[in-house]
Order: sequence, then C-alpha cells, then structure tokens
Amino acid sequence: MVSRTVSGARRARDEVIGRAERRLSEFLAAERTRWAAVDGRGTVPVDAVAGLVAAGGKRLRPAFCAAGFLAAGGAVGDPLVVDAAAGIELIHTGALIHDDVLDASELRRGTPAVHTHHSAVHSANGWLGEPRRYGEGVAIISGVLANVYADRLTRDLPPAAREIWGEMLTEIQLGQYLDVAVAAEGVVEPELSRWIAICKSGRYSIHRPLLLGATIAGRPELAPAFEAYGEALGEAFQLRDDLIGAFGDPEAAGKPVGLDLEQHKMTLLLAWAAQRDERVRKLISRQEWDTAELLDRLGESKDRVERHIDELVERACGAIDTASLDAAWRQELAGMALEVAYRNR
Amino acid sequence: MVSRTVSGARRARDEVIGRAERRLSEFLAAERTRWAAVDGRGTVPVDAVAGLVAAGGKRLRPAFCAAGFLAAGGAVGDPLVVDAAAGIELIHTGALIHDDVLDASELRRGTPAVHTHHSAVHSANGWLGEPRRYGEGVAIISGVLANVYADRLTRDLPPAAREIWGEMLTEIQLGQYLDVAVAAEGVVEPELSRWIAICKSGRYSIHRPLLLGATIAGRPELAPAFEAYGEALGEAFQLRDDLIGAFGDPEAAGKPVGLDLEQHKMTLLLAWAAQRDERVRKLISRQEWDTAELLDRLGESKDRVERHIDELVERACGAIDTASLDAAWRQELAGMALEVAYRNR
Repeated sequence: MVSRTVSGARRARDEVIGRAERRLSEFLAAERTRWAAVDGRGTVPVDAVAGLVAAGGKRLRPAFCAAGFLAAGGAVGDPLVVDAAAGIELIHTGALIHDDVLDASELRRGTPAVHTHHSAVHSANGWLGEPRRYGEGVAIISGVLANVYADRLTRDLPPAAREIWGEMLTEIQLGQYLDVAVAAEGVVEPELSRWIAICKSGRYSIHRPLLLGATIAGRPELAPAFEAYGEALGEAFQLRDDLIGAFGDPEAAGKPVGLDLEQHKMTLLLAWAAQRDERVRKLISRQEWDTAELLDRLGESKDRVERHIDELVERACGAIDTASLDAAWRQELAGMALEVAYRNR
Repeated sequence: MVSRTVSGARRARDEVIGRAERRLSEFLAAERTRWAAVDGRGTVPVDAVAGLVAAGGKRLRPAFCAAGFLAAGGAVGDPLVVDAAAGIELIHTGALIHDDVLDASELRRGTPAVHTHHSAVHSANGWLGEPRRYGEGVAIISGVLANVYADRLTRDLPPAAREIWGEMLTEIQLGQYLDVAVAAEGVVEPELSRWIAICKSGRYSIHRPLLLGATIAGRPELAPAFEAYGEALGEAFQLRDDLIGAFGDPEAAGKPVGLDLEQHKMTLLLAWAAQRDERVRKLISRQEWDTAELLDRLGESKDRVERHIDELVERACGAIDTASLDAAWRQELAGMALEVAYRNR
C-alpha cells in the first residue's frame, strides 16, 4: 500500500531500515557462531565487520535505497529491498575499512580503525612479524569479507538491480584508486577531483541506492529524476562532509579535523574553492601545503559554499517535483535532502 | 551432446576454458577502454588484474568448473559455465593479489607482485607519501576489483550455484585470516593448519569449482562424489604445491623456494610431517626456526609424502568410480587428478 502522508512515508522507510538492521545483525551473528565453532580466531574478521556496522553511521544508503523503493510503489514487506539495504550498508562498511588503510586514518566513528586496533592487538601480544602488516591484513580480509557478505545477501535481486549493483561497486573501486593516485602524484586538477568525489561518494551514497530501490520496485523509468536528484544532493552531501571534516566538531566527525588538508587531499570542498579563488589555487600548487592558511581561505568562502549547497538542494528537489511520484514521497525526499545537506555530523 | 571418448571430453573442456579466457580478456579490455576515457590513471587497477590474469597460471579452477559441468551432462555451448569459469579465475586472481600483501611476497608468477611493482613505480616517480602504502593500496583496490568483476560476470548463475559461490568466497577469506593468525601467533597445531590449508586452497581449487559446474548443469546429486574426489585431490594438490615451494625449481615456482619456512608458515606439508615426525614437531616448537634443518627433515620424508599423495589420488579416483557419470568423464577426471598431483610447477 502506498503511503499517502509524509509521516506514513517516513514510518514505512524506517520500517525497511529496521528490518535491514535486523537482517544484518542476524546474518552476522550466524556467521560468528559458525566460524567460532571452527576455531576461536575465526570470529576476528566477522567481528571487525560487525563492530563497524554496530558502531552506528548514518545509514544513509539503506535510507535512500528504501526511499527509492517505497517512493516507486514497492511494498513495505518485500524482502528484496531489505536485502539490498543491508547489502549496501555492508559495501559501505567494507569501503570504510579499506579507506582507512589507504589514507592511514587511525580513527573511525570515534574508535580506532580496524587496522589500527589490530596492529595494537598484535603489539600487545608480542606476536611474530610486523604489527602493521597484521593489522592491515585483518583490514584487507575484513573489507573483502564485507563485500562477500553483501554479495550473499543480495543474491536474489532481479537482473536489472544486479546490473546497477555491479556498476556501483566498480565505480567505488575506480573512484578509490583515482583518489589515491591524485593524492600520490600531487595532481592539482579541481575538475578531476570533483569528478572523483562525485564518483567515489556522491553517486554511491544517494543516486545509486535510490535507483537500486526503484529498480527492485520495477520502476526503472524513474532513473532520470533520481539521477538528477542524486547527483545534486550527492554533491551537497560531500561538500557538507568536507565542511565537517575541515571545521566541524572532531567528536561529532569521529576523526581529527583538518586531517585531509594535512594529507594533501583534494576534497570536493577544496576543488570547489580552487575553481573560484586564485589564492587557493596558488596555495595548493605549492610543494608544501600551508594548512593553517588554507583553512583560513576556506573559512572565508564558507558563506559562498553554503549558498552553493542551497542551490544544489533546490536543484535536487526540483528534479523530483515533476517525477511521477506520490506527493507524500516527493515531500519526504525533499525532507531527506534537507537532512543530508544541513547535518552537522 | 555428451562426449563418449576421453579425447572428446578433453576437447570439450578445453573449449569451455578457451571461451572463458576470451570472456575474461574481452571484459577486461572493455573495462580498460571505459576507464581510460575517464582519466589515463583509471587503467591502473584494471591492468593490475588483467596483467596477472594474462601472466598465466594453471587455470585449474576454470578447468575443474568446466569438467564438473560437462561431466554432469552440461552442453559445451552454455554461456553460464563460461561465466562461472571466468569468474572463478578472477576470484583466484584477487586472492593472489591480496595474499602477496599479507605474506609480504615480492614475486608472483615470476614477476613482481602487484604491490611490489606499484611501490617501485611510486618510488621511481618520487610521488608524495609512502611508496609501501601506495603499492599496497593499489593491491587492495585491484584485489577487490577482481572480486567485483567476478560478481558481475556471474550475475546470471542460478540460485543454487550462487549459494556455492557465496560459500566458496566466505571460506577463502576465513581461511586466509586463520592462516595469518596462526602465523602471527606462532601456533603449532598441525590439525588446525591442515584444516586451514584445506579450507583455503584445496576446497576452492577443486571441490567447489567441480560442484559449481555440476550445479549449473542441474546435477547437485553429484555433490557427495565430487566432494570426496575434491577433498582428497585438494589435499594432494596442496602437498604438491608445498613440495614445489620447498624443493622445486624457483623459476617454475615463480618465487624463491623455502620462503614459507622462513616466514614460519605452517604449510600442509609441514603440518603433515609434524604429525608423523617427533623431530619436526620439536623444530617448529622453537622460537626461531632452523630453516636448513627443517628442509633436511622434510627432505627425508619426501618418499613418505609421495606415497601419501599416491593414496590420495587413489581415493579421489575411487570416489568417482561409482558416480553416475559417463565412462569417458570418469577417465578424464582420473587424468586430471594425475596432472594435478604429479605436476612440477
């Protein structure tokens, strides 16, 4: 039954997310039991995945997957959307575990990253070999395991949905590599960095989950509207992410602020500022980055970024205004856009 | 049409493998073109995967997948078995790329491992950051990408086959972790190491591919016979692998011999010898391993290992003797067992 009120729409969405949470925790608990029976150590990679899933996170991707499905007329009790929402959160979990190794980030969601934690365990136990290799090894394996579990959970998706799924997973990895390459080579190409940020984060956070949901519901014709909404909102999401990373509360961000600049990372925010401010372009073209001065320059353009985010949100909402959707769902998607674009963590 | 002669059976198997090779290279070439168009750097992770696929390898897993399918009466022109055979080789490729990072192995198939090669590229170009982190980053991403590509290639497998697929992928990662853990903790438990070797290598090299093939052909009732054949032959395969690793020609092995012992690795061969030879048990219970003496002890038990391999091959062939298979395929599977167990590289 299609929800006719915004609160009904939200309730339905939350119910799908709740089911996905239960699906995830039951699946991971069963895997844990199974591997514990083989050997006590077998729980380590399962727990690394389950621990990060349990540590919270915004469940943004399951939310957009559920919204895309329900807005497209899918039934709230359909198990396929639950599988997809749970699977997409696992893909995100695996990407975060690997991302922290690639970036040498030591904190995630306020606690030690998987590789940091397990390097410390290795050191504390005085085990053989190098703590770093062991810790990063656990992270490599757990990240792949999260992908394998996601694959198992989404086994029954219809072919068109699996096509989107495969696209999304490929993009994440290619975006990830381009991100690493641009940082290593010290490439200063705002347009490329913008593309990478959108490919790596924006698209798989909003656009692809929405489209996945709509496709499971059998409404692939919603793709253009969802794409326009997702691309604009994905950019707003990423800009907000970068603003929080540069100026936010470190506790809310769960990691030190300003870290990206110290690592010479061309975030979407920085690329955006470089395209508009000659001084920023100059600063990032130097061999050594002056983090303090860059933060000052970015601080000065905060108002302009906020206005750009406003425009992106407007564009996102405009894109679904004319889509063939129930009015309650148009409103709910507009509400989700506001939440994503104006969050503080 | 079921092949009535052994040479016909082999021709059919080789045709499926040939198609899988073409499927792989066409798929990877298309991905390469697509990402090159985005940015020149986009080809790096695709090439890392394609390079290792092209560098050869025994194509053991595609061969057993094809054999399981054809022996079960599958038609040589069926595209599903081609997808599965290509996919399984990609899973293997991804596992090798990650395995070399976990083991700090610098050579693979006679050329630098993915992480070694890309660390060197980083150094040669004087890029920013740490060469090791970059090289291992490329390896992490390429390994996951190989898994993503495998997933995309096997999208159309029937549910029962995807079930086996998911099992196989989970086992590989858990076996991988237990292997890392046992090495780090210096655990000397031959029975556990035996289980890990069988879980990590034997099972996904022979038993699972065979079963996958039979299931795609719609003959899951062949599972018990294929399991018995696969478990015995998987053990023989792994013992031969360890013999080549310890005593073989380094050029044929594509990596230095004796390396596993230097890394305190409880190979299946070592676990086997420790269960039978008090002196080996003593040597591996020491903090420092005397590699030369261990090699001597293992050398002394070579004949006994060969006899054990003979028994395993006999057991494998016995298991399929009574299976409901065409006589030509029984013979061909026996021939494959001999090839796997008595190879020299």
